Amino acid sequence: MSVLIVGSTALDSIKTPTAENPRLLGGSASHAAVAASFFAPARLIGVVGEDFPKKYLALYQRHHIDVTGLQILPGKTFHWSGEYELNMNNRRTLLTELGVFESFTPVLPPAHQATPYVLLANIAPALQRHVLDQVKRPKFVVADTMDLWLNIALNDLVKLLKRIDGFVLNDSEAHQLTQEDNMFAALKKIHKLGPKYVIIKKGSHGSILSGPKGFFICPAYPLRKVVDPTGAGDSFVGGLMGYLASAGGSVDQHIRRAMLYGSVTASFCCEGFGLTRTTRTTRTEIDRRVKELEAMTKF
Amino acid sequence: MSVLIVGSTALDSIKTPTAENPRLLGGSASHAAVAASFFAPARLIGVVGEDFPKKYLALYQRHHIDVTGLQILPGKTFHWSGEYELNMNNRRTLLTELGVFESFTPVLPPAHQATPYVLLANIAPALQRHVLDQVKRPKFVVADTMDLWLNIALNDLVKLLKRIDGFVLNDSEAHQLTQEDNMFAALKKIHKLGPKYVIIKKGSHGSILSGPKGFFICPAYPLRKVVDPTGAGDSFVGGLMGYLASAGGSVDQHIRRAMLYGSVTASFCCEGFGLTRTTRTTRTEIDRRVKELEAMTKF
Repeated sequence: MSVLIVGSTALDSIKTPTAENPRLLGGSASHAAVAASFFAPARLIGVVGEDFPKKYLALYQRHHIDVTGLQILPGKTFHWSGEYELNMNNRRTLLTELGVFESFTPVLPPAHQATPYVLLANIAPALQRHVLDQVKRPKFVVADTMDLWLNIALNDLVKLLKRIDGFVLNDSEAHQLTQEDNMFAALKKIHKLGPKYVIIKKGSHGSILSGPKGFFICPAYPLRKVVDPTGAGDSFVGGLMGYLASAGGSVDQHIRRAMLYGSVTASFCCEGFGLTRTTRTTRTEIDRRVKELEAMTKF
Repeated sequence: MSVLIVGSTALDSIKTPTAENPRLLGGSASHAAVAASFFAPARLIGVVGEDFPKKYLALYQRHHIDVTGLQILPGKTFHWSGEYELNMNNRRTLLTELGVFESFTPVLPPAHQATPYVLLANIAPALQRHVLDQVKRPKFVVADTMDLWLNIALNDLVKLLKRIDGFVLNDSEAHQLTQEDNMFAALKKIHKLGPKYVIIKKGSHGSILSGPKGFFICPAYPLRKVVDPTGAGDSFVGGLMGYLASAGGSVDQHIRRAMLYGSVTASFCCEGFGLTRTTRTTRTEIDRRVKELEAMTKF
């Protein structure tokens, strides 16, 4: 089955102490769609400007990503520029040029309105809701978010939470949303806001699912070298939704393994700038890492 | 089989924003020995002063801890006082009175010299080595440490590392010792210093073992409320060594499950001040949490 993915489609210029990588393909929807594409057909909803490099359209196509819902508008593509410190843990934004993204209104092609799996990747919650308004009886809807929306669009986010099945956020965002240090307490408050499935991401410490079948503690694949973590969270949730869509059937039956696949897909993302490493991987290579991760957690 | 445990035996006065708990039983050897006692007979090597409360000797005895190697000397028991902030993550030392601990020379009773499992709990590395000098052909020796020894007794610690099988430290100590941010790189450097088994503790994020059978990612038992984390690391390694001693046979066969048992024993430690919660638990209750943890990691 297919996954519909809405989010940002951007050009990322990423600086580190040793390298400069201008205008890489980035954005939450790009990362999530490429990640999902290893498992299931992905349908991308986004907007880019006329300056969007043809090679990136070709990249989407190589991953069989349906770009019928990708608007190409007069103007410039959303451009983000950031700089990482030596240890790759801290980054600061150097520049944000919204371009055509500023007036983005996601429109679903009629053929996409009945997509069973819907991923509302990181984007303004009002836009996430606008996509939800257009889908027909989806089977499973998951939303991601970021600290920015907790700061400037909390009401919109709270409205969204009532309408989705799964919510993904990182540990500091969970703390920001609930004011709870304790994970149990935070999860309880987030469930009360609506979602039946809540996943808290903890970076290299893995992630935790709280759902109808209790908790699942999902490990992260340990990496020898982190080159660029930009997009890792988007890759995680993209891989997760792609795997769920490929498995079909009951979400409860497959969501734990789906998280493992998401985690491994995110590990490839971290090993290269932008999408450079993710796009070079294969389902075989992903399966191998999932097997390794299984071996590292067996007792 | 038995576990020999050397470390500190202390009185801890612990303040939090809501409570004050003067002169609780504490110290690395106390926490580790009580933790180990749920699985195997523990033999304690330590020193206390004449002021050491009789009720704490009775506590050791209730846990069938062999105190033949506990010296009771004229003077005062090691007393540590610390204060936690509201979120229980940050603590500061208010007072350290070494007392009889200042001139502690661990002496093994002859009957303890052939103990197969030896835990060198957190204490000056020169004293840990002094214990090693007295044991005869131990089967498995594990040492714990703390940042203080990396700062003031690094040479002693490096000498110790050549002589032990397993080394346990937390993530910030691993970084301090190796100057490596990446876990792989840090582990590789630590193995080169001697130990075949290295365990990096990450608090509520669990722990990671690197050993002859590869990596093991061990989860932490998620807690609804952390009351006092003092001694959690000691409880972890105590439970681990107790479980290994009870299992006997091959370390490789049992060490993963031993870490799980250590992790769960530490979870009880965090739920009360000092040893108050740990001493109230039972093997049945520990087994139940291990089962829960298994259910939370299955996929």
